[in-house]
Amino acid sequence: MLHPVVLSGGSGTRLWPLSRQNQPKQFLSLIGDHSLFQETVLRASRLPGVQPPVTVCSDDHRFMVGEQLQGVGIGNGGILLEPMARNTAPAIALAALHVAAGDPDGLMLVMPADHLIEDEAAFREAVASARRLAEAGWLVTFGIRPDYAETGYGYILRGEPLDEAGFRVARFVEKPDLPTAERYLAEGTYAWNSGMFLFQARRYLEELATHAPAIAAAAREAHARAHTDLDFTRVDAQAFAASPSDSIDYAVMEKTDRAAVVPVSCGWSDIGSWSSLWSVAQRDEDGNRHEGDVISVDTRGSLVRASERRMIATIGVEDLVIIDTADATLVARKDRVQDVKTIVDRLKADGRTEHLFHRKVYRPWGSYDSIGVGERFQVKKIVVKPGAALSLQKHAHRAEHWIVVSGVAEVTCDERVFDLHENESTYIPQGSTHRLRNNGADPVVLIEVQSGGYLGEDDIVRLEDVYGRS
Amino acid sequence: MLHPVVLSGGSGTRLWPLSRQNQPKQFLSLIGDHSLFQETVLRASRLPGVQPPVTVCSDDHRFMVGEQLQGVGIGNGGILLEPMARNTAPAIALAALHVAAGDPDGLMLVMPADHLIEDEAAFREAVASARRLAEAGWLVTFGIRPDYAETGYGYILRGEPLDEAGFRVARFVEKPDLPTAERYLAEGTYAWNSGMFLFQARRYLEELATHAPAIAAAAREAHARAHTDLDFTRVDAQAFAASPSDSIDYAVMEKTDRAAVVPVSCGWSDIGSWSSLWSVAQRDEDGNRHEGDVISVDTRGSLVRASERRMIATIGVEDLVIIDTADATLVARKDRVQDVKTIVDRLKADGRTEHLFHRKVYRPWGSYDSIGVGERFQVKKIVVKPGAALSLQKHAHRAEHWIVVSGVAEVTCDERVFDLHENESTYIPQGSTHRLRNNGADPVVLIEVQSGGYLGEDDIVRLEDVYGRS
Repeated sequence: MLHPVVLSGGSGTRLWPLSRQNQPKQFLSLIGDHSLFQETVLRASRLPGVQPPVTVCSDDHRFMVGEQLQGVGIGNGGILLEPMARNTAPAIALAALHVAAGDPDGLMLVMPADHLIEDEAAFREAVASARRLAEAGWLVTFGIRPDYAETGYGYILRGEPLDEAGFRVARFVEKPDLPTAERYLAEGTYAWNSGMFLFQARRYLEELATHAPAIAAAAREAHARAHTDLDFTRVDAQAFAASPSDSIDYAVMEKTDRAAVVPVSCGWSDIGSWSSLWSVAQRDEDGNRHEGDVISVDTRGSLVRASERRMIATIGVEDLVIIDTADATLVARKDRVQDVKTIVDRLKADGRTEHLFHRKVYRPWGSYDSIGVGERFQVKKIVVKPGAALSLQKHAHRAEHWIVVSGVAEVTCDERVFDLHENESTYIPQGSTHRLRNNGADPVVLIEVQSGGYLGEDDIVRLEDVYGRS
Repeated sequence: MLHPVVLSGGSGTRLWPLSRQNQPKQFLSLIGDHSLFQETVLRASRLPGVQPPVTVCSDDHRFMVGEQLQGVGIGNGGILLEPMARNTAPAIALAALHVAAGDPDGLMLVMPADHLIEDEAAFREAVASARRLAEAGWLVTFGIRPDYAETGYGYILRGEPLDEAGFRVARFVEKPDLPTAERYLAEGTYAWNSGMFLFQARRYLEELATHAPAIAAAAREAHARAHTDLDFTRVDAQAFAASPSDSIDYAVMEKTDRAAVVPVSCGWSDIGSWSSLWSVAQRDEDGNRHEGDVISVDTRGSLVRASERRMIATIGVEDLVIIDTADATLVARKDRVQDVKTIVDRLKADGRTEHLFHRKVYRPWGSYDSIGVGERFQVKKIVVKPGAALSLQKHAHRAEHWIVVSGVAEVTCDERVFDLHENESTYIPQGSTHRLRNNGADPVVLIEVQSGGYLGEDDIVRLEDVYGRS
């Protein structure tokens, strides 16, 4: 059986201001309606004889993973939470242990959550080829046939053919300089290292035990002492912390003598920057990609993305990336977008938060969006999912006013529990114990007006929480 | 006595998205804390022997004029409302009639409300010179000594000297082509037509009666039948409508034989575009002018203006204008900003409103800002000035919830009248007659949450209004 394993641990900010630490690239809808994570699990779900996906992610993103999996409705083979980042070798080991526990001969298709694949048929064919090799005990990596001399990726040199589609790996090579990349491109025997793999879970664990025993031992211990928290598998933090941090390439693939490569041309991109998103996106006859409410005059070669309820107008500009969000707008020359890192570093240095959070924040029970802030007040739009409840909580410094816009909210305020319907409002005095719950079938949309001298998110005492956050 | 007359009828959108039809350029704080209108009246107020300013503006802007005059606290010599735009000759005629009624020998210093003057000492000196000529019966225009070959302005050729500072006007010339403008610059006897004038009110009316009798008659009739509305003088619309539409230049200055020009170099700019604002603004060593929360990397020669509670990051860009507002952002090449007109035309054609209003709207009683809109709800932040009251009103389609954030609001809701204090809230059911009033000494800040199926501004029945709007 084939188990897709989605590595969703990344927290990159190369697509800032759209990507933030608490909502990295894989959870964004960059092309089309689904996020890259959703595209990844959907693509895997359409493979023949496939099981529900296993996801490895950080604790911070667990509710987003859960919600995005629910959103596409293809089931869930397990969500494994990494207590800390330890690179890909330990993360894949956790997934391998999880898969092997239920399916001792199980095959794993390992995929980063944030890659784009445009030619799904070619991808499926490559997976079928890789599967045959994996069933024969090979650890297969997918090599992307280069279509230009990229210097930002590692390369794989293929060796002797193993069958009509696969080759033994001759060697992995680091990111080359431009003349070397040009030679690789010309020679035709090199492929980009995509970070996608297919192998038996058991075989991976064997090779890991041989070549990186400390990682294998730490992962095994962390997995053995895992516990379940709602839909999530929390591996043991102390045991996992003992693992060396290493990539699957260094720890296993470069060392094993059973590494194979299946070269493929499948319209692959890791969307490592705004310019690479522009280059893979459909563009109009002026070379522009517009998303949202954009009016442009004499504009060429640009990626312009307006945010909700805001418009962007451009005049006479060329080769720009313009990305608007609720709290920050980026205007960059397209060939300079790697310097987004400089901006993010500056935000960090200044103790700001625009690289960490969006204005709209996802929670296990739904979401809130801080639509207005001023002296002594904050207004939030709160959406509570059907069947969900916020924690039972109280605030020392603020009072809250709730107005229901749609749905029916069950309100707890100290001893009283009552329903609040559309157009109705209530008042939660400072210090009162309160909770919001949605017992209905439709989302509850509610406007919360906070008033008081201190309105920080940390003024909260959680007394009870169905999501284990109290 | 010298009466400043401020022409504030413009509703240009050349500084879109910051300027909107209901808040044109003259009311914006483009450089410093005061608006151009306020700078204009303040500059005039510092002249010797000067009376409070007379303002001519459109009905739409009357409360903004009133509020901005109050904001600088220099008194008010009258606010004359033009029922419709009829260009400068009739507008100045209304002001002349207003001035002459109270001061038969009064002098008028006519100034557009939206010009910048950096060298106030030079301006004062020119006014003193012009005043001497005006007292001798001359109609004096201020000619700006050109410092480059501008093709966007009309020019004035000076004739024989009248005294050490002024000259008889030899002729007015239309906007020249570039070679002609270069010749004008080289010859040194041409000056830009600034649109500023100084003359006796009586003399202007005499010349107008001679050279444009229809305008003189219509203005006289409209003024004679004017009535007072709060602080405003409403001239008769029907009478004023009968006036031909013409500029003071065509109607009077080019025809009279008593036109004089006082050339002056006073750092004058009409800020006709974003690029001209950039060129007059103080800039950093990279040639950038930043306003608000801007982080820039390798950015040069650009004007970047962030709006409240939003940041703009720029990377590797040059010679751009980036103007952010609550609902629209402009990104334009600095030498293409005249095409803002194309964007505004497209907004008009599409039946949009981003060229008409800002999200924050000024009212005679204060302001409101639509901070959040969604299906079935709208959230507004409302500020009611001390002593002010909204109209007594009702809505057919929406309910309103009011939460007081600061100050004390007096609420009328059908038969009940009660005070609402900080942190308190109330509910105005659909169809109820209601009013908000601020009897206190501090502004009332209030969050209004509207809920209902239709939330348009036109769902309002005004039953009573202290500002004459019912």
